[in-house]
Amino acid sequence: MIYFAAKSFTKYKTNTIPKTIMAKFLTKREENYSQWYNELVIKADLAENSAVRGCMVIKPYGYAIWEKMQAALDTMFKDTGHENAYFPLFIPKSFFSKEAAHVEGFAKECAVVTHYRLRNTADGKGIEVDPDAKLEEELIVRPTSETIIWNTYKNWIQSYRDLPILINQWANVVRWEMRTRLFLRTTEFLWQEGHTAHATKQEAIDETIQMINIYAKFAEKFMAMPVIIGHKTENERFAGALDTYTIEALMQDGKALQSGTSHFLGQNFAKAFDVQFANKEGKLDHVWASSWGVSTRLMGALVMAHSDDNGLVLPPKLAPYQVVIVPIYKGEEQYKAVKEAGNKIREELRDFGISVKFDDRDTHKPGWKFAEYELKGVPVRLALGARDMENGTIEVARRDTLEKKTYPQEGIAKAIKDLLNDIQENIYNKAAKYRVEHTFTADTMEEFIDILENKGGFVYAHWDGTAETELKIKDQTKATIRCIPLDNKKEEGKCILTGKPSEQRVLFAKAY
Amino acid sequence: MIYFAAKSFTKYKTNTIPKTIMAKFLTKREENYSQWYNELVIKADLAENSAVRGCMVIKPYGYAIWEKMQAALDTMFKDTGHENAYFPLFIPKSFFSKEAAHVEGFAKECAVVTHYRLRNTADGKGIEVDPDAKLEEELIVRPTSETIIWNTYKNWIQSYRDLPILINQWANVVRWEMRTRLFLRTTEFLWQEGHTAHATKQEAIDETIQMINIYAKFAEKFMAMPVIIGHKTENERFAGALDTYTIEALMQDGKALQSGTSHFLGQNFAKAFDVQFANKEGKLDHVWASSWGVSTRLMGALVMAHSDDNGLVLPPKLAPYQVVIVPIYKGEEQYKAVKEAGNKIREELRDFGISVKFDDRDTHKPGWKFAEYELKGVPVRLALGARDMENGTIEVARRDTLEKKTYPQEGIAKAIKDLLNDIQENIYNKAAKYRVEHTFTADTMEEFIDILENKGGFVYAHWDGTAETELKIKDQTKATIRCIPLDNKKEEGKCILTGKPSEQRVLFAKAY
Repeated sequence: MIYFAAKSFTKYKTNTIPKTIMAKFLTKREENYSQWYNELVIKADLAENSAVRGCMVIKPYGYAIWEKMQAALDTMFKDTGHENAYFPLFIPKSFFSKEAAHVEGFAKECAVVTHYRLRNTADGKGIEVDPDAKLEEELIVRPTSETIIWNTYKNWIQSYRDLPILINQWANVVRWEMRTRLFLRTTEFLWQEGHTAHATKQEAIDETIQMINIYAKFAEKFMAMPVIIGHKTENERFAGALDTYTIEALMQDGKALQSGTSHFLGQNFAKAFDVQFANKEGKLDHVWASSWGVSTRLMGALVMAHSDDNGLVLPPKLAPYQVVIVPIYKGEEQYKAVKEAGNKIREELRDFGISVKFDDRDTHKPGWKFAEYELKGVPVRLALGARDMENGTIEVARRDTLEKKTYPQEGIAKAIKDLLNDIQENIYNKAAKYRVEHTFTADTMEEFIDILENKGGFVYAHWDGTAETELKIKDQTKATIRCIPLDNKKEEGKCILTGKPSEQRVLFAKAY
Repeated sequence: MIYFAAKSFTKYKTNTIPKTIMAKFLTKREENYSQWYNELVIKADLAENSAVRGCMVIKPYGYAIWEKMQAALDTMFKDTGHENAYFPLFIPKSFFSKEAAHVEGFAKECAVVTHYRLRNTADGKGIEVDPDAKLEEELIVRPTSETIIWNTYKNWIQSYRDLPILINQWANVVRWEMRTRLFLRTTEFLWQEGHTAHATKQEAIDETIQMINIYAKFAEKFMAMPVIIGHKTENERFAGALDTYTIEALMQDGKALQSGTSHFLGQNFAKAFDVQFANKEGKLDHVWASSWGVSTRLMGALVMAHSDDNGLVLPPKLAPYQVVIVPIYKGEEQYKAVKEAGNKIREELRDFGISVKFDDRDTHKPGWKFAEYELKGVPVRLALGARDMENGTIEVARRDTLEKKTYPQEGIAKAIKDLLNDIQENIYNKAAKYRVEHTFTADTMEEFIDILENKGGFVYAHWDGTAETELKIKDQTKATIRCIPLDNKKEEGKCILTGKPSEQRVLFAKAY
């Protein structure tokens, strides 16, 4: 069992075989960022396109990251008093017409179920839709569930004692997209949607804000991705909402990615579905509502925020496994020794709550494994060879900086625990630094366009507050108002397009 | 704050207010088992029918039980090397025609998506299907995913090194049912479906058997529900399978409920979707397959296996909260004291890994709460009153036997931990005893019919092994062969219908 012919372990372990392998097949970000992303998602085994146009297959490695996201978010939801429930996949077509702004504003690209039976074709070789099995009313595969949920809440709410209702749903939704990209925009995607009902306006607003803050905390603490919290402009608001809060992140190509939204719905859906409650004074009033969601789009954000030309860079808190141990050996005797030591280290790491994979497969060479785990963004790679056995050492490579260092085996678990924290922090800081370096102010359209074309990133600029101006700027520059940041300071100025007075800068960027 | 006028706590705590409330609204099992079930599912807040025919809303309390089921199963799947992934909701119609037995045998009642866009109606008040947005090929909402998954595996498998693939998916599926019942048979339901690919026939068979054993273990250890493992007859096999294993449980009305199935698919789907691999000798061969699933139907089984005329009886391992603490007090001073003691006990229980709800809502009286938690099957109810504060005691009521007993507060956590184990075991034993008492052998059709009509339950009887006889017996008695038990002993006999020779008894019952 000799796996490679390197002259010495030391040489092997520090040479660049893996990186040269990598360089061959992953497009560089500089060359073509978009292609880099598409290739990386597929090559790192996160997801792929399916036989159904616009629908993806989320592969086990990608799904494991999504599960980590779900677990973290679900805990945060439950800690703030929310419960999970499940509502139907299908929504009667007529429900969409009940809330005027919702039907008008919401995309009409939906999957429509019109029949409920197939039958054998006359030749017996295939199947066809049975024309006799036509539905009286078509069903829409949910693009979002406000309508079916508020139609249900109607029966759950009579009095203030029944409020608040704090429910979340993990589900698949479908929006028939014409141009799709893995994770970023797919016809079917996975998400969670929270739908809450409250006795007062203030409570509903507080909930809306609480949830956007939870999303921001999740993005920063788990995804290591700094975000800006703000209001959407009226133009960009969710159809049916009185106010939409968003978190906006900056990707490495200088484009923004909307990563989560939380909507204050006022009494719109309660009125549309006639949901009233008796308040403490016995008077009837319509219920106040919020809804909020994040989706598998976050997977795209995670990839684009941190990864590099060698592959994924995953924050330790979301990595399917945080550490991989790769044994390097010649012959059976060395194998036994490194296997024993590797198993011992694995157990020590696990006792520290670190997730570890010990890859002693004999079907792949160490060099192949190094490249594989670099591509897959495993935060820490440990290599354990014969020399290490003699010296009581182990080689530690961190994915974020690609640095390698030799550690003593003694006390390795504590050292790795600290290293993982350091990596989590470093990834965040790197993204935050990138954002600082790509955040600008512009006072004229000229400046504005120059920044967008030559630097990319977030641009703070004055805007006269009208939808008309917003659209004109978008037409000219492709940049949109990402949000009016919550922590905005007031500052007198003039709209970059119209010169009309403005009292604060808003956040512009080109966006996904 | 005086909540009730009972003469003494002792009297209140042992009187029967809750049960008289209950008796008023829950049909008794003896009167009408089916109605009892329907009422209980709704009144215990597990689920309800939605505005969409045949689709249910799973309410938070029901969904919390499903989440516990998911967590336990998911751990068992992962411990045996499986990973989760996600495949598209939609399947192109043509895929169903590729595997002959699958298209022939599988129900054709499916939701069919024919269009992908809505538009405003001419009057602007509603929406309608846009006739221009007709799909070239209709999409079927997945009733099960073998076809789309094997079409995907085709690209994942080249060599034996790519095998085995051990993937599970948690998903919603749709089968257009004409007669639906909450959890037991719904148009949309939630489930998991495992789809594995192997290099050898034996490996695929071993996997199929491993998974049915995992289901049996889950049913017995977590649901406290004894099951019989066996083969389905050819008649009852999954469409496309060479062998189907099932677990069969007995409900309290003497009817069987198929609770999980695991299918050995041979090379059928690999051949249909042309999935071949190069084996170690470099020869091409078709891949071997299994698939296996359990669904929200288990929720129905759980309700029917254990619950009584007072409401749900939940096994502690699946209860959303295992213990509820209800304070009983008059006036602010007593409230403070019981609240403090209650919080302390809650923390002690939590330190023992017990999930606890402390219900000190002032919007509901203790009697109302007692009835509520009895209906909802909370395994242990603790009541804490002023007298208890004086004596350092607490009243403990177990849901399975309805027994009440006074415990010292000192050491309560350990005592409750033991009690929960005892309840889990007792519920299982009760169900096992019921099954023993309702398992019979019949040697003639007369006996067979007599048992089914007058006693109900499982009937072991000889059968000549033909599909024809099986169907005739079903037509005459409504009983079906639930399975050929794995642990069957060989026994010479004569078929109860035809008198032809038989070498073993098979398991009959009426079934859900």
